[in-house]
Amino acid sequence: MGVPDKVTAMASLEPKKPLQKWEHTPQPLGPQDIDIHVTHNGLCHTDLHMVDNDWGVAKFPFVPGHEVVGTVAAKGSQVTEFEVGERVGYAWINGSCGACGHCIGGDENICLKGWTGTIVGGNHGGFQTYMRQPAKFAYKIPEGLDSVAAAPLLCAGITVYSPLRRLVTHPGTKVTVVGIGGLGHLAIQFAAKMGAEVTALSTSANKEAEAKGFGAKNFVVSSDPNQMKAMAGTQEVIINTVSSANDYAAQMALLRPNGSLCIVGAPVTDVKVGVSDLVFAQKKLMGSLVGGRRDMNEMLEFAAQAGVAPKCETMPLSKVNEAFEKVKNNQARYRIVLLTDV
Amino acid sequence: MGVPDKVTAMASLEPKKPLQKWEHTPQPLGPQDIDIHVTHNGLCHTDLHMVDNDWGVAKFPFVPGHEVVGTVAAKGSQVTEFEVGERVGYAWINGSCGACGHCIGGDENICLKGWTGTIVGGNHGGFQTYMRQPAKFAYKIPEGLDSVAAAPLLCAGITVYSPLRRLVTHPGTKVTVVGIGGLGHLAIQFAAKMGAEVTALSTSANKEAEAKGFGAKNFVVSSDPNQMKAMAGTQEVIINTVSSANDYAAQMALLRPNGSLCIVGAPVTDVKVGVSDLVFAQKKLMGSLVGGRRDMNEMLEFAAQAGVAPKCETMPLSKVNEAFEKVKNNQARYRIVLLTDV
Repeated sequence: MGVPDKVTAMASLEPKKPLQKWEHTPQPLGPQDIDIHVTHNGLCHTDLHMVDNDWGVAKFPFVPGHEVVGTVAAKGSQVTEFEVGERVGYAWINGSCGACGHCIGGDENICLKGWTGTIVGGNHGGFQTYMRQPAKFAYKIPEGLDSVAAAPLLCAGITVYSPLRRLVTHPGTKVTVVGIGGLGHLAIQFAAKMGAEVTALSTSANKEAEAKGFGAKNFVVSSDPNQMKAMAGTQEVIINTVSSANDYAAQMALLRPNGSLCIVGAPVTDVKVGVSDLVFAQKKLMGSLVGGRRDMNEMLEFAAQAGVAPKCETMPLSKVNEAFEKVKNNQARYRIVLLTDV
Repeated sequence: MGVPDKVTAMASLEPKKPLQKWEHTPQPLGPQDIDIHVTHNGLCHTDLHMVDNDWGVAKFPFVPGHEVVGTVAAKGSQVTEFEVGERVGYAWINGSCGACGHCIGGDENICLKGWTGTIVGGNHGGFQTYMRQPAKFAYKIPEGLDSVAAAPLLCAGITVYSPLRRLVTHPGTKVTVVGIGGLGHLAIQFAAKMGAEVTALSTSANKEAEAKGFGAKNFVVSSDPNQMKAMAGTQEVIINTVSSANDYAAQMALLRPNGSLCIVGAPVTDVKVGVSDLVFAQKKLMGSLVGGRRDMNEMLEFAAQAGVAPKCETMPLSKVNEAFEKVKNNQARYRIVLLTDV
């Protein structure tokens, strides 16, 4: 299981350009690092944002991939949590201060000093044969999860699980999931398995059967004013997974008093709501960003136990540029997993 | 202690006009009603909104006044909670469905079927010698609270107490109070007495000494970009008490990850924040509206025990129109209490 001096990657060598095959020599294995022999990568819209450097935090060249599954190929001298050969996952966050209250509680995604990212600032993610990263942010994959299913859970899954874990406060909580895509189809499953009464809200009437198959009890087409009106003031939780600007105010109207609209897509836009919407019915508007180590381990166990699994199509890693095109054109149903073949 | 057939009020006979002395005959005393011999009324900006019919829910003529203190003058046959002669308070809400989960939990302010208001829809509030209302929404005034201090607690006090009760989650919680007026000066006191580390944020540099006297540890002038910058990313809770539009986005920047901005003023305006502010640091934007019976009783007990008291000036009820002018011109320091003299 040794790691070669040079590893092969599909890398982003300059902004907005197709990925290219690239060989590089990783930094030396530190005492707290782990080498993962990468077998699977979920493909996430965030990989695209990073390649396009939409947020200005990418450093080129870098290797995308932050829904990584593989086996431990080597480990640093201080790593005791994992054994060589064990199946592990790796996700968006690869470091945090470790000392603030949030980190101590396992909520590293809201580290008060700021976390570091697996593919941020020139760090190399999973689109390669071997990935070297801090062992602290690797996750054991439960036996009941196959590697294809596990990969998208590491980002898409945790992104919806973590807010649902906080917001589904009782059996039967009325949860609306906005957007039935990579994140949304997992949000429906998680919420339903948590015991929520789930409504899927979509612009596409033709997604009804699938949404109900994922566990939605109700299906509403957001462009139908009658359906929206009938639903006004009824929902306790709305998880908005849409990655582009959309009508947040119309969704606020669906909330009942004390309800929460939680945005997990991250369009570069403003959200505007009436102060009276917030005050007179005590509605809440919030966001959520992936999840920390506590939630991640819990989520993986829950997915295995409850049978939550993304619907995936697989493609070889060498065809990642084609896969990117499918994601851009909103053609992935619902998540693409890349199998390492480079 | 009998109630006369006709009671004298300072009433709003038509929208936007000065209040006038007005005699009226109350509806018959129902079995679940209470008559309060009114001695004190806190004056709230909301009384002004109702007289001006800003929200379209007033019905004329009506008697304003929803921070009412007095003694029980009579009670309906089914009222067992209160005794004639006992000191009680009355506030914004006078009814709710009583059957939804929120009402059962004592959170009638977020009743799923909607509450009714003490001065809404033609109901008559406290600016009169005797007020007849449902006994269920009367509150015993603890002995340690004098009647002048108790009156503003019934609306201004509960409005800030209720969100602080939920958001001050640990000793030392970093709380910023925006706006040092009727609500703000109570928010500072409540938060400090709950053990929070309080920062007062004001447009007026000259309020520093008083804000610190109320319990603020820090004082920041919102127009000073250096002070605002130094404070960025540090606050866990912001309670915004300002009754006109203000820079919510600048306040969001003061929140640390997972922090909450709670609006309790109700300007007729929109609030616009960046989705990335919500998502990347999991910040929350919310509102809060007075409080239910559970919080109200708890708040009154806490105020009495901890020594929270509004700073008030008193005026006779007959001069309510002068008092309104002072409130309009932002000259009340910090709350006016009207003594019944009509």
